[in-house]
Amino acid sequence: MEGVGLAQRRLVVAANRGPVSFHDDPSGEPVVTRGPGGLVTVLTEVLRHYRGTWVAAALSDAERRLAAEERAVEVALDGEEYRVRYVAPSPEAYHKYYNIVSNPMLWFIQHYLWDLGRHPDIRAEEMDAWHAGYVVVNGQFAAAVIDEVRGGAAGPGSGPSGDGRDAVVLLHDYQLYLVAADVRAACPGAFLHQFIHIPWPQSDYWRVLPTQIREAVFRGLLGNDVVAFHTRHYVSNFLRGCADLLDLEVDEARGVVRYDGREVWVRAYPVSIDPASLRDAAGSSRAHVAELELVRRRREYLLLRVDRLDLSKNIIRGFVALDRFLELHPEFKERLTFLALLQPSREDVEEYVTYRERVERIVADVNTRHGTTDWMPIDLRIQDDFPVTLAAYAQYDVLLVNAISDGMNLVAKEGPILNRHDGVLVLSEYAGAFEELGAFSLGVNPFDIEGQAEALHRALTMPADERADRAGMLRRVVEENSVEKWVQAQFTDIAAKLDAEG
Amino acid sequence: MEGVGLAQRRLVVAANRGPVSFHDDPSGEPVVTRGPGGLVTVLTEVLRHYRGTWVAAALSDAERRLAAEERAVEVALDGEEYRVRYVAPSPEAYHKYYNIVSNPMLWFIQHYLWDLGRHPDIRAEEMDAWHAGYVVVNGQFAAAVIDEVRGGAAGPGSGPSGDGRDAVVLLHDYQLYLVAADVRAACPGAFLHQFIHIPWPQSDYWRVLPTQIREAVFRGLLGNDVVAFHTRHYVSNFLRGCADLLDLEVDEARGVVRYDGREVWVRAYPVSIDPASLRDAAGSSRAHVAELELVRRRREYLLLRVDRLDLSKNIIRGFVALDRFLELHPEFKERLTFLALLQPSREDVEEYVTYRERVERIVADVNTRHGTTDWMPIDLRIQDDFPVTLAAYAQYDVLLVNAISDGMNLVAKEGPILNRHDGVLVLSEYAGAFEELGAFSLGVNPFDIEGQAEALHRALTMPADERADRAGMLRRVVEENSVEKWVQAQFTDIAAKLDAEG
Repeated sequence: MEGVGLAQRRLVVAANRGPVSFHDDPSGEPVVTRGPGGLVTVLTEVLRHYRGTWVAAALSDAERRLAAEERAVEVALDGEEYRVRYVAPSPEAYHKYYNIVSNPMLWFIQHYLWDLGRHPDIRAEEMDAWHAGYVVVNGQFAAAVIDEVRGGAAGPGSGPSGDGRDAVVLLHDYQLYLVAADVRAACPGAFLHQFIHIPWPQSDYWRVLPTQIREAVFRGLLGNDVVAFHTRHYVSNFLRGCADLLDLEVDEARGVVRYDGREVWVRAYPVSIDPASLRDAAGSSRAHVAELELVRRRREYLLLRVDRLDLSKNIIRGFVALDRFLELHPEFKERLTFLALLQPSREDVEEYVTYRERVERIVADVNTRHGTTDWMPIDLRIQDDFPVTLAAYAQYDVLLVNAISDGMNLVAKEGPILNRHDGVLVLSEYAGAFEELGAFSLGVNPFDIEGQAEALHRALTMPADERADRAGMLRRVVEENSVEKWVQAQFTDIAAKLDAEG
Repeated sequence: MEGVGLAQRRLVVAANRGPVSFHDDPSGEPVVTRGPGGLVTVLTEVLRHYRGTWVAAALSDAERRLAAEERAVEVALDGEEYRVRYVAPSPEAYHKYYNIVSNPMLWFIQHYLWDLGRHPDIRAEEMDAWHAGYVVVNGQFAAAVIDEVRGGAAGPGSGPSGDGRDAVVLLHDYQLYLVAADVRAACPGAFLHQFIHIPWPQSDYWRVLPTQIREAVFRGLLGNDVVAFHTRHYVSNFLRGCADLLDLEVDEARGVVRYDGREVWVRAYPVSIDPASLRDAAGSSRAHVAELELVRRRREYLLLRVDRLDLSKNIIRGFVALDRFLELHPEFKERLTFLALLQPSREDVEEYVTYRERVERIVADVNTRHGTTDWMPIDLRIQDDFPVTLAAYAQYDVLLVNAISDGMNLVAKEGPILNRHDGVLVLSEYAGAFEELGAFSLGVNPFDIEGQAEALHRALTMPADERADRAGMLRRVVEENSVEKWVQAQFTDIAAKLDAEG
């Protein structure tokens, strides 16, 4: 097949969520807002550099109507232009795909979160969720991607080649593990790239899933030309998993799996943020108002955590560590506030409802145990209010990120960019961000309560010059590895692989 | 150092439990009984071939008095002679070493059993249990082993060399990870060998422990000349763990770790049973009486499980699978009994108490759901009655071993030797025994309820000739790989390594 370089190729992106949300307002008029989540931000950054179409699941009635047109729609929002193509799974299929297989099943496996003595049970319900949910929705995504690769509404033969040789397909995350293999079968010329934004566990933990399912996951991903992760650690786990579970030949040093006569590249690209646009947002009047309020009420020390309300974030052990810290160092009583900004998440999933209740209970316990007439140690806010987050980033003395496991964790990168107190980052050794930021943070084992309590104390008593040095280095590492670099590194490798195979 | 071959060396064995138990009877007279547990059986087999001293923890007052003598005692029981040396940790230290660090901490890590979103918390109590329990008791074991290596009560210089070059030390299991390094430091000429009877998990899961603890575990084991496991899978996990966690040079193909200027051999020796002595036991009159009783009451089909009451055994999912099987195949109602022979275990540990309650509850649920006036599907017996087990082995049509994770599982080897019904073995893919017996059993994923229900159905409807073929092959594999072969394989490698280094 004749090689086609990157410059001559069109881009098709696919992710579960789209870049924008279409909703009907109360009068029935469609309105467009920006889609939620960090993935939207980074993919928007990709599409700013390389125009293309974004394939996503329709989540509202307005989006389902657009899906029925079976072509991409153009939309402009906040100075960005998007071309979006919706796929519309039935609500039942979507529920099975999203709320049973993707979460908690895959999410819990990839974060080592199952309580294996009790869960999961793979019953008829779970097998049905796989076949009638995950497989079906992935098939719908694949069909839409194939259609876009072949030229979309313009139809095959209208310029773009039917075999996909003028397309680069970027698939994103753990909801879409089966798409690449289908697209490759239909369009063998397309260049396929998939980024996994969550951790990749070692092979034993994948064995929780029935052989047929875990092999479909690995074989689906190996339909790509490049499989990408945030860290070298996940790359190594994936490569060894291919050897252990599929008995494939892998070259760990080169990051290559031999599969089906092809070389699949497995690479690490640590995602990041855009410091400039974060600073822009922090300059808004809403962030300013929030910061004034925070300053007015803050104590001598502000401890901060910013997380989705997810078991993987290890929120409870953070509060238990505070409890232990106050027990060991009562001199800090009434002098600090632990502000916990927690975004509600996946409230349709039973495990998440239970977790929120447990978080609220431990906060009540710790506040009751240590609080005084006019002091509550923990200020828990279960909300999604970005201006307050930006204000808190500016003000913290200690930022706690103690995740059990976390693909990257962008809070650990956002905080240091905006902070103005030479705040100390206490960072889990098992957050992806630790590979880049570990040297300038205080590393903690997420299970080690005693270690976390010690780290809080060390952070709060660190000499000013050491705080300043560390904060400066954190800022520098994040500045020098912005999301733009993340995008460029991936496209450089795509071009290199196209050239190598041309 | 001059090499000393195996034939010129004395043997010192160390394991938490001794081969015999000394107790004071009500009148205050000491009585001796055989120690419990499968490890005693296999180590007795070792000492039958190679005489030596056995170092163990004193668990009774009688044993603590023997420990105070600081020398080995000779005892004869059931035609075997033992030389036993006791160490006597304080009850507090023993509790910390055994009931906090060894179980549940290490046991749960090595079987992937922690519910990481909730447990473990490494608090001051756990750190203290490590330092004041596990480290201390391991130190006491090391001191006793060193004394025995140097000649025991005879004292140094009385013949045996002080550097240990005339000794082979066999350390056993996960309670004693820190002994080898101490013994090597004191007696660099001793040959040190440690067998781990439980699974070895992959490196990510070891990261649950604080760095200092997990590194002490690995470095302690690397004090040995040979580190031994039941399966190639655990060997591979250990080797990669050395590379991942300690950044050591490992050679997976040769099974070697370079450590401290030495080569540590890492090897798999699948433990087994002694078919002849098992048959002897089955020929006892008590086993015969138990079998008559079982035959009198048995239904058309007998399903059997025999397990310690341990979370790793996956007892509950086995009953849930039976529930599902009866739902799918009501034609089997009243025609079968699921006999569950469960030995009580570790009743001092909270997790085990909770588990027993959960097991009793699910049995009540399933019996209530499917039972009839004169039929209870599950016959649950929480007891330790070996004659009943032997009788049930002879009679089962299906033997279910569905462990989440299991070092080896000897039930899967004992059952086929005694069974007289061409019974089918349904075997977890994650029991160590699967490497040898998987081809002739029905393999199941322990999390897959649907798969286990299907396997039960397939087993109960399997054509007679296929059942006979499989049962015959299982018997043959076990006969041809008896525990004697297990002992010989290890001593052959010890001799080979001594020769290579001579």
